[in-house]
Amino acid sequence: MIGIFDSGIGGLTVVKSIVEQLPGYDIIYFGDTARTPYGNKSPETVINYALENTDFLLSKGAKIIVMACNTASSVAMERMTGKYDIPIFEVITPAVELSIKTSDKLRIGIIGTRATVKSGIYEKKLKGVNPGARVYSVACPLFVPLVEEGWLKKPETRMIVKKYLHPLKVRQINTLILGCTHYPLLKNIIRHKIGKRVKIIDSSIAVAEKIKDFLTNYPEIDKKLGKNGKSEFFVSDVTEQFEKTARTVLGKNIFLEQTRI
Amino acid sequence: MIGIFDSGIGGLTVVKSIVEQLPGYDIIYFGDTARTPYGNKSPETVINYALENTDFLLSKGAKIIVMACNTASSVAMERMTGKYDIPIFEVITPAVELSIKTSDKLRIGIIGTRATVKSGIYEKKLKGVNPGARVYSVACPLFVPLVEEGWLKKPETRMIVKKYLHPLKVRQINTLILGCTHYPLLKNIIRHKIGKRVKIIDSSIAVAEKIKDFLTNYPEIDKKLGKNGKSEFFVSDVTEQFEKTARTVLGKNIFLEQTRI
Repeated sequence: MIGIFDSGIGGLTVVKSIVEQLPGYDIIYFGDTARTPYGNKSPETVINYALENTDFLLSKGAKIIVMACNTASSVAMERMTGKYDIPIFEVITPAVELSIKTSDKLRIGIIGTRATVKSGIYEKKLKGVNPGARVYSVACPLFVPLVEEGWLKKPETRMIVKKYLHPLKVRQINTLILGCTHYPLLKNIIRHKIGKRVKIIDSSIAVAEKIKDFLTNYPEIDKKLGKNGKSEFFVSDVTEQFEKTARTVLGKNIFLEQTRI
Repeated sequence: MIGIFDSGIGGLTVVKSIVEQLPGYDIIYFGDTARTPYGNKSPETVINYALENTDFLLSKGAKIIVMACNTASSVAMERMTGKYDIPIFEVITPAVELSIKTSDKLRIGIIGTRATVKSGIYEKKLKGVNPGARVYSVACPLFVPLVEEGWLKKPETRMIVKKYLHPLKVRQINTLILGCTHYPLLKNIIRHKIGKRVKIIDSSIAVAEKIKDFLTNYPEIDKKLGKNGKSEFFVSDVTEQFEKTARTVLGKNIFLEQTRI
Protein backbone atom coordinates (compact mmCIF):
# COMPACT_ATOMS: atom_id res chain seq x y z
CA MET A 1 0.00 0.00 0.00
CA ILE A 2 0.95 3.63 -0.49
CA GLY A 3 0.80 5.23 2.95
CA ILE A 4 -0.06 8.93 3.04
CA PHE A 5 -0.33 11.16 6.07
CA ASP A 6 -1.22 14.76 6.70
CA SER A 7 -1.97 17.00 9.66
CA GLY A 8 -5.63 16.75 8.73
CA ILE A 9 -7.74 17.45 5.70
CA GLY A 10 -5.30 19.09 3.29
CA GLY A 11 -3.50 15.89 2.29
CA LEU A 12 -6.64 14.72 0.52
CA THR A 13 -5.58 16.89 -2.42
CA VAL A 14 -2.46 14.69 -2.59
CA VAL A 15 -4.63 11.55 -2.45
CA LYS A 16 -6.65 12.92 -5.34
CA SER A 17 -3.52 13.56 -7.44
CA ILE A 18 -2.05 10.12 -6.63
CA VAL A 19 -5.31 8.40 -7.59
CA GLU A 20 -5.27 10.33 -10.86
CA GLN A 21 -1.62 9.47 -11.63
CA LEU A 22 -1.68 5.90 -10.32
CA PRO A 23 -5.24 4.63 -10.71
CA GLY A 24 -5.90 1.31 -9.02
CA TYR A 25 -3.05 1.48 -6.48
CA ASP A 26 -4.08 0.66 -2.93
CA ILE A 27 -3.72 3.58 -0.59
CA ILE A 28 -4.00 4.14 3.12
CA TYR A 29 -4.44 7.64 4.50
CA PHE A 30 -3.98 8.99 7.99
CA GLY A 31 -5.23 12.48 8.86
CA ASP A 32 -4.06 13.69 12.26
CA THR A 33 -7.25 15.64 12.92
CA ALA A 34 -6.88 15.39 16.71
CA ARG A 35 -3.64 17.39 16.62
CA THR A 36 -4.25 19.56 13.56
CA PRO A 37 -2.98 22.08 12.54
CA TYR A 38 0.79 21.53 12.46
CA GLY A 39 1.57 24.89 10.85
CA ASN A 40 1.95 26.92 14.04
CA LYS A 41 3.82 24.27 16.03
CA SER A 42 7.51 23.88 16.76
CA PRO A 43 9.79 21.63 14.64
CA GLU A 44 10.40 19.13 17.46
CA THR A 45 6.68 18.62 18.05
CA VAL A 46 5.97 18.21 14.33
CA ILE A 47 8.85 15.70 13.97
CA ASN A 48 7.44 13.58 16.80
CA TYR A 49 4.02 13.61 15.16
CA ALA A 50 5.50 12.61 11.76
CA LEU A 51 7.32 9.64 13.29
CA GLU A 52 4.21 8.48 15.15
CA ASN A 53 2.05 8.80 12.04
CA THR A 54 4.58 6.82 10.00
CA ASP A 55 4.73 4.04 12.60
CA PHE A 56 0.96 3.80 12.39
CA LEU A 57 0.91 3.55 8.58
CA LEU A 58 3.69 0.93 8.61
CA SER A 59 1.76 -1.12 11.16
CA LYS A 60 -1.14 -1.10 8.68
CA GLY A 61 1.02 -2.42 5.82
CA ALA A 62 2.28 0.70 4.02
CA LYS A 63 5.37 0.00 1.85
CA ILE A 64 6.13 3.58 0.86
CA ILE A 65 5.30 6.76 2.77
CA VAL A 66 4.15 10.12 1.47
CA MET A 67 4.27 13.08 3.84
CA ALA A 68 1.39 15.02 2.31
CA CYS A 69 1.95 17.95 4.64
CA ASN A 70 4.33 20.77 3.83
CA THR A 71 4.97 21.58 7.46
CA ALA A 72 6.03 17.99 8.25
CA SER A 73 7.98 17.82 4.97
CA SER A 74 9.81 21.02 5.93
CA VAL A 75 11.14 19.80 9.22
CA ALA A 76 10.96 16.00 9.48
CA MET A 77 12.56 14.55 6.33
CA GLU A 78 16.03 14.08 7.77
CA ARG A 79 14.79 12.30 10.89
CA MET A 80 12.42 10.18 8.78
CA THR A 81 15.08 8.93 6.37
CA GLY A 82 17.42 8.34 9.32
CA LYS A 83 14.87 6.09 10.99
CA TYR A 84 13.07 4.16 8.22
CA ASP A 85 14.51 1.96 5.51
CA ILE A 86 11.75 2.42 2.91
CA PRO A 87 11.07 5.07 0.24
CA ILE A 88 9.77 8.28 1.79
CA PHE A 89 8.39 11.16 -0.25
CA GLU A 90 7.87 14.71 0.83
CA VAL A 91 5.95 17.37 -1.06
CA ILE A 92 8.61 20.06 -1.27
CA THR A 93 11.36 18.75 -3.56
CA PRO A 94 8.97 17.84 -6.41
CA ALA A 95 7.44 21.33 -6.35
CA VAL A 96 10.91 22.90 -6.28
CA GLU A 97 12.14 20.88 -9.27
CA LEU A 98 9.01 21.63 -11.26
CA SER A 99 9.29 25.35 -10.49
CA ILE A 100 12.90 25.60 -11.62
CA LYS A 101 12.09 23.63 -14.77
CA THR A 102 9.16 25.80 -15.77
CA SER A 103 9.98 29.27 -14.43
CA ASP A 104 11.76 31.27 -17.13
CA LYS A 105 12.43 34.40 -15.08
CA LEU A 106 13.13 32.52 -11.85
CA ARG A 107 11.20 35.01 -9.73
CA ILE A 108 9.50 32.52 -7.47
CA GLY A 109 6.96 33.16 -4.72
CA ILE A 110 6.11 30.72 -1.96
CA ILE A 111 3.03 30.73 0.23
CA GLY A 112 2.71 28.38 3.20
CA THR A 113 2.06 28.07 6.89
CA ARG A 114 4.13 29.99 9.39
CA ALA A 115 6.23 26.89 10.20
CA THR A 116 6.93 26.09 6.54
CA VAL A 117 7.94 29.66 5.69
CA LYS A 118 10.04 29.99 8.82
CA SER A 119 11.94 26.80 8.02
CA GLY A 120 13.26 28.50 4.85
CA ILE A 121 13.30 25.10 3.17
CA TYR A 122 11.85 26.14 -0.19
CA GLU A 123 14.34 28.95 -0.53
CA LYS A 124 17.24 26.66 0.39
CA LYS A 125 16.17 23.96 -2.05
CA LEU A 126 15.36 26.37 -4.89
CA LYS A 127 18.76 28.04 -4.56
CA GLY A 128 20.38 24.62 -4.28
CA VAL A 129 19.01 23.69 -7.69
CA ASN A 130 19.59 27.13 -9.23
CA PRO A 131 21.50 29.74 -7.23
CA GLY A 132 20.18 32.45 -9.55
CA ALA A 133 16.58 32.00 -8.39
CA ARG A 134 14.99 34.91 -6.55
CA VAL A 135 12.68 33.67 -3.89
CA TYR A 136 10.01 35.53 -1.90
CA SER A 137 7.99 33.85 0.84
CA VAL A 138 4.80 34.82 2.66
CA ALA A 139 3.14 32.96 5.54
CA CYS A 140 -0.66 32.81 5.20
CA PRO A 141 -1.89 31.34 8.52
CA LEU A 142 -5.54 32.17 7.84
CA PHE A 143 -5.84 30.12 4.64
CA VAL A 144 -6.12 26.78 6.44
CA PRO A 145 -8.95 27.88 8.77
CA LEU A 146 -10.76 29.52 5.84
CA VAL A 147 -10.59 26.27 3.86
CA GLU A 148 -11.65 24.22 6.86
CA GLU A 149 -14.58 26.61 7.40
CA GLY A 150 -15.56 25.97 3.76
CA TRP A 151 -15.33 29.69 2.88
CA LEU A 152 -13.90 28.98 -0.57
CA LYS A 153 -15.68 31.77 -2.45
CA LYS A 154 -16.62 34.37 0.14
CA PRO A 155 -15.69 38.05 -0.29
CA GLU A 156 -13.81 37.97 3.04
CA THR A 157 -11.66 35.16 1.68
CA ARG A 158 -10.94 37.16 -1.47
CA MET A 159 -9.83 40.14 0.63
CA ILE A 160 -7.58 38.02 2.80
CA VAL A 161 -6.03 36.29 -0.23
CA LYS A 162 -5.41 39.67 -1.81
CA LYS A 163 -3.78 41.01 1.36
CA TYR A 164 -1.45 38.03 1.78
CA LEU A 165 -0.45 37.99 -1.91
CA HIS A 166 0.18 41.72 -2.15
CA PRO A 167 3.93 41.60 -1.29
CA LEU A 168 4.45 38.88 -3.91
CA LYS A 169 2.63 40.89 -6.54
CA VAL A 170 4.84 43.88 -5.83
CA ARG A 171 7.90 41.66 -6.37
CA GLN A 172 6.56 40.67 -9.79
CA ILE A 173 6.93 36.95 -9.29
CA ASN A 174 6.27 34.80 -12.34
CA THR A 175 5.87 31.49 -10.49
CA LEU A 176 3.94 30.80 -7.29
CA ILE A 177 4.33 27.61 -5.27
CA LEU A 178 1.30 26.60 -3.21
CA GLY A 179 3.35 25.40 -0.26
CA CYS A 180 0.49 23.87 1.70
CA THR A 181 -1.82 21.07 0.66
CA HIS A 182 -4.90 23.04 1.70
CA TYR A 183 -4.19 25.82 -0.75
CA PRO A 184 -5.23 24.07 -4.00
CA LEU A 185 -8.79 24.49 -2.71
CA LEU A 186 -8.28 28.26 -3.00
CA LYS A 187 -6.53 28.01 -6.38
CA ASN A 188 -9.15 29.95 -8.34
CA ILE A 189 -9.10 32.95 -6.03
CA ILE A 190 -5.30 32.82 -5.81
CA ARG A 191 -5.00 32.76 -9.61
CA HIS A 192 -7.38 35.70 -9.89
CA LYS A 193 -5.53 37.80 -7.30
CA ILE A 194 -1.95 37.04 -8.32
CA GLY A 195 -2.67 37.46 -12.04
CA LYS A 196 -2.95 35.03 -14.91
CA ARG A 197 0.66 35.40 -16.09
CA VAL A 198 1.94 33.80 -12.89
CA LYS A 199 2.39 30.04 -13.16
CA ILE A 200 0.95 28.24 -10.15
CA ILE A 201 2.77 25.14 -8.92
CA ASP A 202 0.56 22.75 -7.00
CA SER A 203 2.75 20.55 -4.79
CA SER A 204 0.12 17.81 -4.65
CA ILE A 205 0.35 17.30 -8.43
CA ALA A 206 4.16 17.55 -8.40
CA VAL A 207 4.59 14.84 -5.77
CA ALA A 208 2.17 12.45 -7.50
CA GLU A 209 4.18 12.75 -10.74
CA LYS A 210 7.39 12.14 -8.81
CA ILE A 211 6.01 8.95 -7.24
CA LYS A 212 4.86 7.68 -10.63
CA ASP A 213 8.34 8.23 -12.11
CA PHE A 214 9.94 6.53 -9.12
CA LEU A 215 7.77 3.43 -9.42
CA THR A 216 8.54 3.18 -13.14
CA ASN A 217 12.26 3.27 -12.33
CA TYR A 218 12.03 0.81 -9.41
CA PRO A 219 9.77 -2.07 -10.51
CA GLU A 220 10.90 -4.20 -7.54
CA ILE A 221 9.27 -1.67 -5.21
CA ASP A 222 6.29 -1.22 -7.49
CA LYS A 223 5.74 -4.98 -7.28
CA LYS A 224 5.25 -4.77 -3.50
CA LEU A 225 2.32 -2.37 -3.85
CA GLY A 226 -1.23 -3.73 -4.02
CA LYS A 227 -3.28 -2.65 -7.03
CA ASN A 228 -6.82 -3.58 -6.11
CA GLY A 229 -8.14 -0.03 -6.03
CA LYS A 230 -8.60 -0.21 -2.26
CA SER A 231 -8.46 2.89 -0.12
CA GLU A 232 -8.63 3.21 3.65
CA PHE A 233 -8.97 6.46 5.56
CA PHE A 234 -7.99 6.81 9.20
CA VAL A 235 -8.20 9.93 11.33
CA SER A 236 -7.20 10.61 14.92
CA ASP A 237 -10.50 12.43 15.44
CA VAL A 238 -13.70 12.01 13.46
CA THR A 239 -15.25 15.37 12.66
CA GLU A 240 -18.09 16.35 10.35
CA GLN A 241 -15.85 18.90 8.71
CA PHE A 242 -13.46 16.21 7.52
CA GLU A 243 -16.25 14.24 5.88
CA LYS A 244 -17.58 17.38 4.24
CA THR A 245 -14.20 18.44 2.87
CA ALA A 246 -13.43 14.88 1.75
CA ARG A 247 -16.57 15.01 -0.39
CA THR A 248 -15.51 18.36 -1.87
CA VAL A 249 -11.95 17.22 -2.64
CA LEU A 250 -12.46 13.63 -3.72
CA GLY A 251 -15.95 14.01 -5.14
CA LYS A 252 -17.28 11.01 -3.22
CA ASN A 253 -18.19 9.85 0.25
CA ILE A 254 -15.50 8.00 2.17
CA PHE A 255 -15.68 5.78 5.20
CA LEU A 256 -13.60 7.13 8.09
CA GLU A 257 -12.07 4.97 10.79
CA GLN A 258 -10.85 6.53 14.00
CA THR A 259 -7.58 5.52 15.63
CA ARG A 260 -5.94 6.87 18.75
CA ILE A 261 -2.32 7.79 18.26
CA MET B 1 -1.87 26.94 43.75
CA ILE B 2 -4.76 27.74 41.42
CA GLY B 3 -4.31 25.50 38.38
CA ILE B 4 -5.67 26.83 35.09
CA PHE B 5 -5.61 25.14 31.74
CA ASP B 6 -6.68 26.05 28.23
CA SER B 7 -6.30 24.68 24.73
CA GLY B 8 -3.69 27.36 24.12
CA ILE B 9 -3.54 31.11 24.32
CA GLY B 10 -7.14 32.11 25.06
CA GLY B 11 -7.10 31.10 28.71
CA LEU B 12 -4.71 33.93 29.46
CA THR B 13 -7.75 36.22 29.53
CA VAL B 14 -8.96 34.10 32.47
CA VAL B 15 -5.54 34.39 34.14
CA LYS B 16 -5.78 38.14 33.79
CA SER B 17 -9.23 38.25 35.41
CA ILE B 18 -8.18 35.92 38.24
CA VAL B 19 -5.11 38.04 38.97
CA GLU B 20 -7.35 41.12 39.07
CA GLN B 21 -9.92 39.50 41.39
CA LEU B 22 -7.45 37.59 43.56
CA PRO B 23 -4.20 39.53 43.53
CA GLY B 24 -1.27 37.71 45.10
CA TYR B 25 -2.65 34.16 44.73
CA ASP B 26 -0.16 31.69 43.26
CA ILE B 27 -1.22 30.37 39.89
CA ILE B 28 0.00 27.72 37.51
CA TYR B 29 -1.12 27.75 33.88
CA PHE B 30 -0.97 25.07 31.25
CA GLY B 31 -1.64 25.95 27.59
CA ASP B 32 -1.98 22.90 25.37
CA THR B 33 -0.41 24.63 22.38
CA ALA B 34 0.78 21.34 20.82
CA ARG B 35 -2.81 20.16 20.41
CA THR B 36 -4.60 23.48 19.98
CA PRO B 37 -7.31 24.22 18.90
CA TYR B 38 -9.89 22.09 20.69
CA GLY B 39 -12.89 23.79 19.07
CA ASN B 40 -13.18 21.55 16.01
CA LYS B 41 -12.44 18.27 17.79
CA SER B 42 -14.79 15.56 19.02
CA PRO B 43 -16.04 15.43 22.64
CA GLU B 44 -14.14 12.21 23.45
CA THR B 45 -10.82 13.67 22.29
CA VAL B 46 -11.37 16.91 24.21
CA ILE B 47 -12.31 14.97 27.38
CA ASN B 48 -9.07 12.96 27.17
CA TYR B 49 -7.07 16.14 26.79
CA ALA B 50 -8.84 17.77 29.75
CA LEU B 51 -8.07 14.81 32.01
CA GLU B 52 -4.41 14.74 30.94
CA ASN B 53 -4.04 18.48 31.47
CA THR B 54 -5.59 18.22 34.93
CA ASP B 55 -3.26 15.35 35.91
CA PHE B 56 -0.34 17.53 34.90
CA LEU B 57 -1.51 20.52 36.98
CA LEU B 58 -2.18 18.31 40.02
CA SER B 59 1.31 16.83 39.72
CA LYS B 60 2.62 20.40 39.93
CA GLY B 61 0.73 21.14 43.13
CA ALA B 62 -2.58 22.67 41.99
CA LYS B 63 -5.29 22.53 44.68
CA ILE B 64 -8.20 23.80 42.60
CA ILE B 65 -8.64 23.53 38.82
CA VAL B 66 -10.06 26.07 36.38
CA MET B 67 -10.94 24.87 32.88
CA ALA B 68 -10.36 28.18 31.12
CA CYS B 69 -11.58 26.76 27.82
CA ASN B 70 -15.21 26.81 26.78
CA THR B 71 -14.86 23.77 24.57
CA ALA B 72 -13.42 21.66 27.39
CA SER B 73 -15.96 23.15 29.83
CA SER B 74 -18.78 22.18 27.43
CA VAL B 75 -17.96 18.52 27.25
CA ALA B 76 -15.64 17.47 30.08
CA MET B 77 -17.18 18.71 33.35
CA GLU B 78 -19.05 15.54 34.21
CA ARG B 79 -16.04 13.30 33.67
CA MET B 80 -13.83 15.72 35.57
CA THR B 81 -16.01 15.86 38.68
CA GLY B 82 -16.41 12.09 38.48
CA LYS B 83 -12.66 11.59 38.60
CA TYR B 84 -11.22 14.29 40.88
CA ASP B 85 -12.05 15.10 44.48
CA ILE B 86 -11.11 18.79 44.43
CA PRO B 87 -12.98 21.96 43.41
CA ILE B 88 -13.22 22.26 39.64
CA PHE B 89 -14.45 25.38 37.88
CA GLU B 90 -15.64 25.71 34.33
CA VAL B 91 -16.29 28.94 32.47
CA ILE B 92 -19.86 28.33 31.35
CA THR B 93 -22.02 28.32 34.49
CA PRO B 94 -20.70 31.67 35.80
CA ALA B 95 -21.44 33.35 32.44
CA VAL B 96 -24.90 31.78 32.37
CA GLU B 97 -25.77 32.98 35.87
CA LEU B 98 -24.49 36.48 35.19
CA SER B 99 -26.48 36.64 31.94
CA ILE B 100 -29.75 35.63 33.54
CA LYS B 101 -29.15 38.07 36.40
CA THR B 102 -28.46 41.06 34.15
CA SER B 103 -30.51 40.40 31.01
CA ASP B 104 -33.88 42.10 31.38
CA LYS B 105 -35.41 40.91 28.10
CA LEU B 106 -33.79 37.46 28.24
CA ARG B 107 -32.94 37.46 24.53
CA ILE B 108 -29.49 35.97 24.81
CA GLY B 109 -26.96 35.35 22.06
CA ILE B 110 -24.01 32.97 22.35
CA ILE B 111 -20.91 32.93 20.19
CA GLY B 112 -18.35 30.15 20.47
CA THR B 113 -16.39 27.47 18.66
CA ARG B 114 -18.14 24.83 16.61
CA ALA B 115 -17.74 22.26 19.42
CA THR B 116 -19.13 24.58 22.10
CA VAL B 117 -22.14 25.60 20.03
CA LYS B 118 -22.83 22.04 18.94
CA SER B 119 -22.80 20.84 22.55
CA GLY B 120 -25.84 23.07 23.22
CA ILE B 121 -24.60 23.50 26.77
CA TYR B 122 -25.24 27.25 27.10
CA GLU B 123 -28.80 26.87 25.90
CA LYS B 124 -29.43 23.96 28.25
CA LYS B 125 -27.99 25.80 31.25
CA LEU B 126 -29.68 29.12 30.46
CA LYS B 127 -33.07 27.42 30.15
CA GLY B 128 -32.31 25.42 33.28
CA VAL B 129 -31.97 28.68 35.24
CA ASN B 130 -34.83 30.44 33.46
CA PRO B 131 -37.02 28.47 31.05
CA GLY B 132 -38.29 31.75 29.60
CA ALA B 133 -34.91 32.67 28.14
CA ARG B 134 -34.66 32.84 24.36
CA VAL B 135 -31.27 31.67 23.22
CA TYR B 136 -29.60 32.02 19.84
CA SER B 137 -26.18 30.51 19.11
CA VAL B 138 -23.65 31.05 16.34
CA ALA B 139 -20.36 29.22 15.82
CA CYS B 140 -17.51 31.53 14.81
CA PRO B 141 -14.61 29.19 13.90
CA LEU B 142 -12.52 31.96 12.31
CA PHE B 143 -12.29 34.15 15.42
CA VAL B 144 -9.62 32.01 17.10
CA PRO B 145 -7.25 31.99 14.08
CA LEU B 146 -7.80 35.74 13.60
CA VAL B 147 -6.85 36.39 17.22
CA GLU B 148 -3.86 34.07 17.01
CA GLU B 149 -2.74 35.86 13.83
CA GLY B 150 -2.93 39.10 15.79
CA TRP B 151 -5.45 40.65 13.36
CA LEU B 152 -7.33 42.41 16.13
CA LYS B 153 -8.16 45.61 14.23
CA LYS B 154 -7.98 44.72 10.53
CA PRO B 155 -10.86 45.48 8.12
CA GLU B 156 -11.08 41.78 7.20
CA THR B 157 -11.64 40.97 10.86
CA ARG B 158 -14.39 43.60 11.08
CA MET B 159 -16.13 42.09 8.05
CA ILE B 160 -15.93 38.57 9.44
CA VAL B 161 -17.20 39.69 12.85
CA LYS B 162 -20.10 41.48 11.15
CA LYS B 163 -20.97 38.40 9.07
CA TYR B 164 -20.96 36.04 12.04
CA LEU B 165 -22.98 38.41 14.25
CA HIS B 166 -25.59 39.21 11.62
CA PRO B 167 -28.07 36.43 12.58
CA LEU B 168 -27.88 37.54 16.23
CA LYS B 169 -28.50 41.15 15.31
CA VAL B 170 -31.57 40.12 13.33
CA ARG B 171 -32.89 38.30 16.43
CA GLN B 172 -32.51 41.52 18.44
CA ILE B 173 -30.61 39.95 21.29
CA ASN B 174 -30.00 42.19 24.30
CA THR B 175 -27.23 40.10 25.87
CA LEU B 176 -24.27 38.43 24.17
CA ILE B 177 -22.12 35.78 25.85
CA LEU B 178 -18.54 35.57 24.60
CA GLY B 179 -18.41 31.78 24.80
CA CYS B 180 -14.72 31.41 24.04
CA THR B 181 -11.79 32.79 26.00
CA HIS B 182 -10.16 34.15 22.84
CA TYR B 183 -13.08 36.42 22.09
CA PRO B 184 -12.49 39.13 24.72
CA LEU B 185 -9.54 40.16 22.52
CA LEU B 186 -12.10 41.10 19.84
CA LYS B 187 -14.47 42.76 22.32
CA ASN B 188 -14.21 46.25 20.84
CA ILE B 189 -15.10 45.14 17.32
CA ILE B 190 -17.83 42.85 18.63
CA ARG B 191 -19.35 45.69 20.67
CA HIS B 192 -19.25 47.97 17.65
CA LYS B 193 -20.90 45.44 15.32
CA ILE B 194 -23.57 44.09 17.67
CA GLY B 195 -24.55 47.55 18.94
CA LYS B 196 -24.02 49.36 22.20
CA ARG B 197 -27.36 48.41 23.71
CA VAL B 198 -26.36 44.76 23.86
CA LYS B 199 -24.73 43.77 27.14
CA ILE B 200 -21.60 41.70 26.58
CA ILE B 201 -20.85 38.93 29.07
CA ASP B 202 -17.20 38.00 29.27
CA SER B 203 -16.89 34.49 30.69
CA SER B 204 -13.34 35.12 31.88
CA ILE B 205 -14.56 37.86 34.23
CA ALA B 206 -17.58 35.82 35.33
CA VAL B 207 -15.52 32.79 36.36
CA ALA B 208 -12.98 34.90 38.27
CA GLU B 209 -15.79 36.45 40.32
CA LYS B 210 -17.22 32.99 40.96
CA ILE B 211 -13.88 31.68 42.26
CA LYS B 212 -13.50 34.69 44.54
CA ASP B 213 -16.96 34.09 46.05
CA PHE B 214 -16.19 30.41 46.48
CA LEU B 215 -12.96 31.05 48.36
CA THR B 216 -14.71 33.53 50.65
CA ASN B 217 -17.30 30.85 51.48
CA TYR B 218 -14.76 28.03 51.92
CA PRO B 219 -11.87 29.42 53.95
CA GLU B 220 -10.50 25.89 54.60
CA ILE B 221 -9.82 25.57 50.87
CA ASP B 222 -8.61 29.14 50.59
CA LYS B 223 -6.07 28.31 53.30
CA LYS B 224 -4.47 25.64 51.09
CA LEU B 225 -3.68 28.13 48.34
CA GLY B 226 -0.32 29.88 48.27
CA LYS B 227 -0.39 33.68 48.20
CA ASN B 228 3.13 34.65 47.27
CA GLY B 229 2.22 36.22 43.92
CA LYS B 230 3.99 33.42 42.05
CA SER B 231 2.92 32.43 38.58
CA GLU B 232 4.20 29.61 36.39
CA PHE B 233 3.33 29.12 32.75
CA PHE B 234 3.68 25.77 31.01
CA VAL B 235 2.89 24.98 27.38
CA SER B 236 3.04 21.74 25.40
CA ASP B 237 4.73 23.59 22.55
CA VAL B 238 6.70 26.82 22.77
CA THR B 239 5.75 29.19 19.95
CA GLU B 240 6.57 32.83 19.34
CA GLN B 241 2.89 33.57 18.89
CA PHE B 242 2.12 32.52 22.45
CA GLU B 243 4.75 34.85 23.87
CA LYS B 244 3.47 37.70 21.72
CA THR B 245 -0.16 37.19 22.72
CA ALA B 246 0.80 36.75 26.38
CA ARG B 247 2.37 40.20 26.25
CA THR B 248 -0.79 41.64 24.67
CA VAL B 249 -3.14 40.02 27.19
CA LEU B 250 -1.17 40.25 30.42
CA GLY B 251 0.78 43.38 29.59
CA LYS B 252 4.10 41.83 30.62
CA ASN B 253 6.65 39.28 29.49
CA ILE B 254 6.27 35.81 30.94
CA PHE B 255 8.70 32.91 31.13
CA LEU B 256 7.38 29.81 29.37
CA GLU B 257 8.36 26.27 30.28
CA GLN B 258 7.72 23.45 27.87
CA THR B 259 6.35 20.09 28.98
CA ARG B 260 5.46 17.06 26.92
CA ILE B 261 2.04 15.68 27.70
